[in-house]
Amino acid sequence: MSTVNIKPLADRVLVEPAAAETTTASGIIIPDNAKEKPQKGTVVAVGPGTKDVEMTVKIGDTVLYGKYAGTELNVEGKDFLIMREADIFAII
Amino acid sequence: MSTVNIKPLADRVLVEPAAAETTTASGIIIPDNAKEKPQKGTVVAVGPGTKDVEMTVKIGDTVLYGKYAGTELNVEGKDFLIMREADIFAII
Amino acid sequence: MSTVNIKPLADRVLVEPAAAETTTASGIIIPDNAKEKPQKGTVVAVGPGTKDVEMTVKIGDTVLYGKYAGTELNVEGKDFLIMREADIFAII
Amino acid sequence: MSTVNIKPLADRVLVEPAAAETTTASGIIIPDNAKEKPQKGTVVAVGPGTKDVEMTVKIGDTVLYGKYAGTELNVEGKDFLIMREADIFAII
Amino acid sequence: MSTVNIKPLADRVLVEPAAAETTTASGIIIPDNAKEKPQKGTVVAVGPGTKDVEMTVKIGDTVLYGKYAGTELNVEGKDFLIMREADIFAII
Amino acid sequence: MSTVNIKPLADRVLVEPAAAETTTASGIIIPDNAKEKPQKGTVVAVGPGTKDVEMTVKIGDTVLYGKYAGTELNVEGKDFLIMREADIFAII
Amino acid sequence: MSTVNIKPLADRVLVEPAAAETTTASGIIIPDNAKEKPQKGTVVAVGPGTKDVEMTVKIGDTVLYGKYAGTELNVEGKDFLIMREADIFAII
Repeated sequence: MSTVNIKPLADRVLVEPAAAETTTASGIIIPDNAKEKPQKGTVVAVGPGTKDVEMTVKIGDTVLYGKYAGTELNVEGKDFLIMREADIFAII
Repeated sequence: MSTVNIKPLADRVLVEPAAAETTTASGIIIPDNAKEKPQKGTVVAVGPGTKDVEMTVKIGDTVLYGKYAGTELNVEGKDFLIMREADIFAII
Repeated sequence: MSTVNIKPLADRVLVEPAAAETTTASGIIIPDNAKEKPQKGTVVAVGPGTKDVEMTVKIGDTVLYGKYAGTELNVEGKDFLIMREADIFAII
Repeated sequence: MSTVNIKPLADRVLVEPAAAETTTASGIIIPDNAKEKPQKGTVVAVGPGTKDVEMTVKIGDTVLYGKYAGTELNVEGKDFLIMREADIFAII
Repeated sequence: MSTVNIKPLADRVLVEPAAAETTTASGIIIPDNAKEKPQKGTVVAVGPGTKDVEMTVKIGDTVLYGKYAGTELNVEGKDFLIMREADIFAII
Repeated sequence: MSTVNIKPLADRVLVEPAAAETTTASGIIIPDNAKEKPQKGTVVAVGPGTKDVEMTVKIGDTVLYGKYAGTELNVEGKDFLIMREADIFAII
Repeated sequence: MSTVNIKPLADRVLVEPAAAETTTASGIIIPDNAKEKPQKGTVVAVGPGTKDVEMTVKIGDTVLYGKYAGTELNVEGKDFLIMREADIFAII
């Protein structure tokens, strides 16, 4: 898990997407542009919440989220997603 | 019913869709691509609810939901739907 | 009136649509595909309501609702409509 | 004014539209399909209101409403409009 | 100012539009179809307000409102506009 | 600053737009149709506010607002903008 | 960091965008029209907040925000962005 010096505002969560798997279940290596975008990631920073939203996820949680959740953010050369906690479906 | 190690957030419910029936009422076997998408399923995980939503469904409930409810989620190789409790019409 | 073993969630109501009349006021029998969709039905199951909605209709009430109200639901081989109480115009 | 055995739900009002006038101000009789849809009617049934809406109109009030207000409802062979009180502009 | 026997509901206001001026600032008489729609009018009836809206305008006030505010209403042969107080910009 | 006899309703503010500058920073005189619409103006009248909005701007404040904020209003031969205080970005 | 004499209203924040970098990671100088719009900036003025929004960012904070956040504002010859605090993702 990456550590970054960043403080999300309000009910936002910074997520490091899991690396897309390059081998299919049947062991065939798929070329880069066929990789499915990951929908699983690790929480690396959590906002303080708002008057209406008490935060549930914690740093280090593995979370599932929708394919189009969040905004891509490049921090210190790594790609992250910043999303609202409401965009996270579940903790696994 | 499947058991999965997953904690839905907020008012979300993880549902295992019932297998689509491959035989019609009159006993005719229908080919795979004509199968109607199931709208019935079993609750396998329930979120804690929110300040506004107290959860009603429980693990093991058979529920009815709309054809387009929820988001498909593959967990440990099985297909589930994660939806908000508000997308569930009724318990049968 | 049908009885079904189904518990609508929240402010939902299960309605059994009245059979469309096959004879017009003047006694002419109309062919099947000209039948108007019924907008009258009988309440067969009522949800518990929500924090914001106290339920008014009761099982057995004959209700009027809009032509496009609710979602069709087949329960135990019969066709019903499940709708929110807010979709019901009046009790007759 | 018609009397009907119908109980509107919530903040709904059952209105009997005034008959469209078939004679213009200058006394010319206009053919049926040129008649303007009435925007004036008589209240024949009033719902109990809601937590947020206390009802103002009473049975017998003559009310003005927008050209597209409400839903047409045929009750006991007569045409009515069922609308929310918020769709009524004024009592005259 | 006209007087009319009409009670607007809720936060509605009945406004008598000012007659469009038929002479431009430079004294040229403009033909009828070039007349700008008036945006100034006189309040002739005021609703009781709502739980959320306490009425500010009074009968007799000259008010300014947007070009598309309100609904045209013919009462006793005269043309009025019925609008919500929120559609009125200012009293002059 | 103009003075006008006008009382904005609710959370509205009457603003006198600053004259568009006809000379660019580099001193070139630009033709009239290239002039940028001013986004700076002076507050000439302020509404009383609403239950939800306490007014911040005062008469005489120079304010910045969006290019499409407000509605043009001609009062006593001068052009003003009437807008909600929420359309004002800042006081300078 | 620039200092400006400007008071944002409500929950608005004035941000001075960071200069776009003209050299790519690999050291190649990119021409002006290929420069990516900065998404990082420095807070130069903060509004008082609203009844619903208590401000979190302070003058001098480096903030990250979406590519289309805010409105461009030229103050004293410099380009700024004025945005709501809700448009700011994080403080770095």
